[in-house]
Amino acid sequence: MSHKIEGIFCPHVIPLDHQDRLNESELRRIIDFLIERGITGIYPNGSTGEFTRMTHTERRRIIEIVQEQASRAGRDVPVLAGAYEANIEVTLDALNYYADLGCRAGALIAPHYYKMSQENVRTYFEEVANRAQIDIVLYNIPQFSNEISIDTIEQLCQHPRIIGIKDSSRDMPRFLATINRIRPKRSDFSFLVGCEEILLPTLMMGGDGGTIATSGVVPEVVMKLYNLYRAGHHDEAIKIQYQMLDLIEAMLNGVDFPEGFRSGMTVRGFDMGRGRQHQSARSQLDIDRLTRTIQCLIAEHGLVSEPPGGCGISQVDDQTIQAIVSQVVERFGGGKLA
Amino acid sequence: MSHKIEGIFCPHVIPLDHQDRLNESELRRIIDFLIERGITGIYPNGSTGEFTRMTHTERRRIIEIVQEQASRAGRDVPVLAGAYEANIEVTLDALNYYADLGCRAGALIAPHYYKMSQENVRTYFEEVANRAQIDIVLYNIPQFSNEISIDTIEQLCQHPRIIGIKDSSRDMPRFLATINRIRPKRSDFSFLVGCEEILLPTLMMGGDGGTIATSGVVPEVVMKLYNLYRAGHHDEAIKIQYQMLDLIEAMLNGVDFPEGFRSGMTVRGFDMGRGRQHQSARSQLDIDRLTRTIQCLIAEHGLVSEPPGGCGISQVDDQTIQAIVSQVVERFGGGKLA
Amino acid sequence: MSHKIEGIFCPHVIPLDHQDRLNESELRRIIDFLIERGITGIYPNGSTGEFTRMTHTERRRIIEIVQEQASRAGRDVPVLAGAYEANIEVTLDALNYYADLGCRAGALIAPHYYKMSQENVRTYFEEVANRAQIDIVLYNIPQFSNEISIDTIEQLCQHPRIIGIKDSSRDMPRFLATINRIRPKRSDFSFLVGCEEILLPTLMMGGDGGTIATSGVVPEVVMKLYNLYRAGHHDEAIKIQYQMLDLIEAMLNGVDFPEGFRSGMTVRGFDMGRGRQHQSARSQLDIDRLTRTIQCLIAEHGLVSEPPGGCGISQVDDQTIQAIVSQVVERFGGGKLA
Amino acid sequence: MSHKIEGIFCPHVIPLDHQDRLNESELRRIIDFLIERGITGIYPNGSTGEFTRMTHTERRRIIEIVQEQASRAGRDVPVLAGAYEANIEVTLDALNYYADLGCRAGALIAPHYYKMSQENVRTYFEEVANRAQIDIVLYNIPQFSNEISIDTIEQLCQHPRIIGIKDSSRDMPRFLATINRIRPKRSDFSFLVGCEEILLPTLMMGGDGGTIATSGVVPEVVMKLYNLYRAGHHDEAIKIQYQMLDLIEAMLNGVDFPEGFRSGMTVRGFDMGRGRQHQSARSQLDIDRLTRTIQCLIAEHGLVSEPPGGCGISQVDDQTIQAIVSQVVERFGGGKLA
Repeated sequence: MSHKIEGIFCPHVIPLDHQDRLNESELRRIIDFLIERGITGIYPNGSTGEFTRMTHTERRRIIEIVQEQASRAGRDVPVLAGAYEANIEVTLDALNYYADLGCRAGALIAPHYYKMSQENVRTYFEEVANRAQIDIVLYNIPQFSNEISIDTIEQLCQHPRIIGIKDSSRDMPRFLATINRIRPKRSDFSFLVGCEEILLPTLMMGGDGGTIATSGVVPEVVMKLYNLYRAGHHDEAIKIQYQMLDLIEAMLNGVDFPEGFRSGMTVRGFDMGRGRQHQSARSQLDIDRLTRTIQCLIAEHGLVSEPPGGCGISQVDDQTIQAIVSQVVERFGGGKLA
Repeated sequence: MSHKIEGIFCPHVIPLDHQDRLNESELRRIIDFLIERGITGIYPNGSTGEFTRMTHTERRRIIEIVQEQASRAGRDVPVLAGAYEANIEVTLDALNYYADLGCRAGALIAPHYYKMSQENVRTYFEEVANRAQIDIVLYNIPQFSNEISIDTIEQLCQHPRIIGIKDSSRDMPRFLATINRIRPKRSDFSFLVGCEEILLPTLMMGGDGGTIATSGVVPEVVMKLYNLYRAGHHDEAIKIQYQMLDLIEAMLNGVDFPEGFRSGMTVRGFDMGRGRQHQSARSQLDIDRLTRTIQCLIAEHGLVSEPPGGCGISQVDDQTIQAIVSQVVERFGGGKLA
Repeated sequence: MSHKIEGIFCPHVIPLDHQDRLNESELRRIIDFLIERGITGIYPNGSTGEFTRMTHTERRRIIEIVQEQASRAGRDVPVLAGAYEANIEVTLDALNYYADLGCRAGALIAPHYYKMSQENVRTYFEEVANRAQIDIVLYNIPQFSNEISIDTIEQLCQHPRIIGIKDSSRDMPRFLATINRIRPKRSDFSFLVGCEEILLPTLMMGGDGGTIATSGVVPEVVMKLYNLYRAGHHDEAIKIQYQMLDLIEAMLNGVDFPEGFRSGMTVRGFDMGRGRQHQSARSQLDIDRLTRTIQCLIAEHGLVSEPPGGCGISQVDDQTIQAIVSQVVERFGGGKLA
Repeated sequence: MSHKIEGIFCPHVIPLDHQDRLNESELRRIIDFLIERGITGIYPNGSTGEFTRMTHTERRRIIEIVQEQASRAGRDVPVLAGAYEANIEVTLDALNYYADLGCRAGALIAPHYYKMSQENVRTYFEEVANRAQIDIVLYNIPQFSNEISIDTIEQLCQHPRIIGIKDSSRDMPRFLATINRIRPKRSDFSFLVGCEEILLPTLMMGGDGGTIATSGVVPEVVMKLYNLYRAGHHDEAIKIQYQMLDLIEAMLNGVDFPEGFRSGMTVRGFDMGRGRQHQSARSQLDIDRLTRTIQCLIAEHGLVSEPPGGCGISQVDDQTIQAIVSQVVERFGGGKLA
C-alpha cells in the first residue's frame, strides 16, 4: 500500500483561453509554479477548479495534463484527482482512467443536487470503492452537496480503498470528532482540512494536512506555515495563519466563488481568461476592485509589487459611501420608495 | 362546549407612552377601532404584540384591558389570549387567570429558545391541556420557536381542551396536509392561518380563518375579503387578496418586525410610541420612509389621505441611488476598499 | 409568437433497462400513456427525470424520443425540454438542438452547486435568452440550486424569449407575490407551480398550470382536477386535491426522491428498472414496502387493483414497533448504549 | 479598570427542589464544588442554566447566591452574570443590581425570538453599554438568538464597558476572524469560546478561555487541560481534549439540551431535581440510559465509580435493535404501513 496522504494539496483554478477553451500551456505553467514552490500535491477538478462547469472530456484532459506535469522530469508529486461524474458508471470509468495515468488517488464528493439518505451515500461509496482500481478520498462539502456524516465515514473507513477524508465543512468540532472516532479504527486514514482559515489548528490537533485553495495563489506562504508547523515552530506558524486570514477572506467573500481565487492567480501573473460563469458588469467591477485589494495583500507577503497608486490609504470607505447615499436619499427620497 | 373558532382575529401591536409604559387608553381605542370595523376576534400578546418584550405583569394587564373592551356594553367579541410564559407553572397561572376573565381561549407557541424534540413538545402541550381551565389553540411559528409538527398535532388533536392550530409557518403544503390529517379525526378543530399573503387560498381550501396582523391596520379591507369569500364572491375576494400584497410586503419587509405594523397603526391615527426594541438612526430613517409608503398604500384603499407631497411619482428609485453610488465609488475608489 | 404555456406538464421518470441504459421503448410507452390520458404537455429532463444523473448524450436522446412521440401521428403535444448543461455554451447547443426538434420551450434552473449572486443569475439567463432560438421557462428550485428571486424574474420578464416561471419552491406566498409583480408588466407570462400539494390553490389564484410529477403516475386524477377546475367545479376539484395528498406524501417522503415516483410508475405497469442512484438493502426494503402503499393509494382511485393481501388493515403500525423496541431496549439495555 | 477576563468560566445547571423551586442549598454546594476544584469563574444564568425558563425573580436570586458563594470566606472568584431580560429597561435594572452585588461583568445575548438587523443589534448593545454600571461581555449564540456579527463587534469593541465576546457559534473560522479583526483595535478584549469541543485549539490560537458547560460536571478535567496548556504541555492537553470529546458528545446529543448536563451533575452527586421543561416518558428513559453512559465516561477519568453492572460491554447496540425491528416489520409489515 502507498503512503498515507498528508501535506498541502492545491485545488487550483483552471485557466481558459479567449475562446472559452482549456488553456493547456497556462495550466502547465501553473502546475510548475506550484511544484517549484514546494507544494506537496496537486488536486485538480476540485470545487475551486469548477469541475461542474467543465465537460466530461475537459475533466479528463485536465487530469492528463496535471499528472503529466506532476511526473515529468523525474518528479513524483502526488495527484489527487477530483473524479465526480454524473453517475456511478461514468465515475468508475474516470477513476480507473486516472489510476492508469498514475494518479495517487481519486477524490469524490457524495452525489449532489438531490438530497440523499446517509444509507445511500454509504452505498454509493461502498460500490465505488469495491470497483475502483485507485484509492479514494471522501470529500465532504455539505454547503454544495450531500453531507458524508461521521457515522458514514465510520462505516466506510475500514475499506482498504478508502484512505481519507477531505473535510470542507468549515466545522472544526466535526473535524475533531471525526479524528476521535476514526483514528482508533484505522491509524493510516488521512484527515485533510478543506477550510483554509483553520489549517493550522487542525494540524496542531493532529490533522494530516489540507486541500487549500490559497496555496494556489501564495504557495510560498502556505508551505511556510506548513513547514514551520512541522519543524515545531508553532508561534511563527500561528503568526502566518493570522496573516493569511485577510487574504483568504478577500478571496472567499464579496464576489462569487471562485472568482477571488481566479483574481489571485491573475495577480501572480497567470492568464486565467474569463470564468465559465459569466459575471454581470457590476460583479466584474467588484472583481476588478477586489483584484487590487488582493494584490495589496499579496504584496504584504513580498511576493508581488503593489498595484499602481499604492496600497497605503483607502481613499473611500463604506461609511463615507453610506453617508453620501443617505444625503442623496434624504434630498430626493419620498414617494413610494420602499 | 363553545363554538368552533373561526373568522379573523387581530394580533395587534401594543401602544406605549412616552415613558415606555403601556398606553392603556390608546390600547382601548385600538380595540374599539377594530371591533367597530367588524373584526371577528382579538388576539393580544401574539408575536405582533411583542409579548416577549413585555413583562409578566404587562402581559396580564394587556389581556385584562382587551377582554374588558371586548365585552363591554353588551359586546361579546372573542379574545384569543397569547399566554406563553417562562415555564409551565407560570403559563398555567396565566391561562387560568385569562379563563377567569372570560377569554375564549389561550394561544400557545411551543417553548422557544432551546431546540426541543417533538416528544417533549407534545408532553408540554398535554400537560398544559390537562391542567388548564380554558381552551388552547396551538401556535406554530417555526421561524421563532420550536415547530409543532403535524404528527404532534395529530397526537394532541383529540384532547378536548385543544381546539385548533394557528399556523404562521408560511407553508401552504403543510397547512393543507394538517387539515387532511386532522379533520377526519376531529371535525370541530380550527385551522387558522397566520400568513396574511395566503389568507384567501387557505379559506378557499377549507381553512377556518386567520390571525392576520394586517387586520389591525386595515380591518376594513381584511374583513371585506373575508365577507366576500363567505358570500361566495370569490373573484372579488381574489382581487382584494392581491391588492393587499403590496401593503403586507411593505409592512413585513425592509424594517425589523413588527415596526412596519407599528407604522401602519400610526398612519391610522394611533399614538403608538416608540417600540421596546430601539432602532438605530438609520433604521428609524427607513421606518419614516416606509411609513410614507404605507400611507400611500392605505390611501389606495380610500382609508386615509395621501401624505403631503402625494404618492404619484417616486422621486428617486433604487437604480438612481445605485448609479450615484457607483460614480462615487469610481471617483474615490481604490486602495484597500474591498 | 406561440401561445402562452398553460395546463399540466408531466416531469416523468426515466426507465432504464437491465444494463443501466435508457429503455427507449418503455419511454415511448410512458409518453403514449400520458398523452392518451389527456396530459397537456411533457416535461422531460426535469428533476424527477434525474437529469443530473444522465450523460449529455442521454439527455439529448431523451428529448429526441419524447418529441418524436409527442408529435407522431398528427399529435401536437407541447414539450418543455429540460435543457440545463454544465456551462452556457453546452446549454445553448442543447437548447438550439431542441428548437430544431420542434420542442415548445426549454426549461432552465439557475446554475447549481456554487452559490451565486442574483446579479450573476440574471446575467446567465439574459445571455441564454439573447442567444437561444427557443423560448425559455425559468425553473426555480432553491432546495437544489440557486434561487431565482422575484426581483430577478422582474428584470428578466420582458425579454421576449423568457415566457414563464416554473416554481418548485413550495412557497405559496412567493408564488402569489410573483404573479402580483410580473403580470402587470407582461400579461402573457406563464406561472406554473412545481409543488403538487398546492396545484389547485395556485390555479384558483390565477396560476396557469403546473409541472406535476404525480401526473406521471395518475394522469387521470390530475387531469380530472384540472378539468374540473377549468369547468368551474371548484368543490369537486378541492375534494380531488385533498384525495391526492396522501399519494403525493407517500411518493415524496420516506425514500430518496424520486424513488417514490419510480415506484408509482412500476405500479402502473411500467418496467422502470433500477435507478441510477443505487439504494442500500434497507432503502430497497423501504421502497418495496412503499410500493405496496402506493398501490393501495392508487387503487383507491380505481386505477389499479389492490396488492395481494389487500389494503384494508395495517397489520403493524409505528406505535406497535416502538413498543416492541422499547421492550427490547429495556430488557437488554445498559452498558454504553447511548 | 479590572483585569481582562480569561480562564474557564462554568455555565452551571440550576438545581430545583421537588416543588419545582430553586434548591438554594444545593446551588451553594455546586458553587463550592466548582471553586474547590479550581474553576476560574462562575457563569450563572447562561443557556446551560436555562435562564429563559426561570422567572425574573429567580434569575436575581440565583445571581445573589452565586455571588455570595464566590466571595465568601475571602474568596474572590469572578462571576459573569447572565443578565438578559425581556427588554432593555429590565435588563439595565438587572445589570446594575449585579454591579451592586459585586459581579465581575454581565453577559448578554442579542435580543432573541424576533429576527433583528445588525444595525439594531448594535444599537441595543450601545445603549446597554452607555447606561450600565458594570462591564459587558457580548454573548454570540446564533443557534438560539440573533447573531452578533464580527462587523458589529468591531463597531462595539472600543466602548470601555464592552470587554469581551463569548462565542458559542461552534464556528472556529469565525472565532479566529474575530480575534484577527478586534485584537489590533483593542488588546485587552477577551475572546472566550463557548464550544467545548474546540476549547484547546482556540487557546492555542490565542483565545483567552471559555465558558465550558462540561466544567460543571468534570471541573478537574477541564482545569487540567487548561493548566497543562498554560504550562506549555500541549501534547498532554491535546490528549485530554480528545478524551473529553465522548463525554461532551454524550451530554450534548441524544437528549434535549441541557438534560445531559443535568445528568452529569447527578452522577457527580448533586440532587438536581427535575428540569423545568418536563420530559416525555420515552425521553426520560433516554435520559436514564444516558446517565449510565455518562457515569461510565466520567468513571474513565477516575472521578466516580462505574455504575452497578459495570461499563465493559455494551449488552445491546443499535444494530442489534435494528435487526430485531426489521424482523418485526418483515413478519407483520404490509398494508398501509408507510
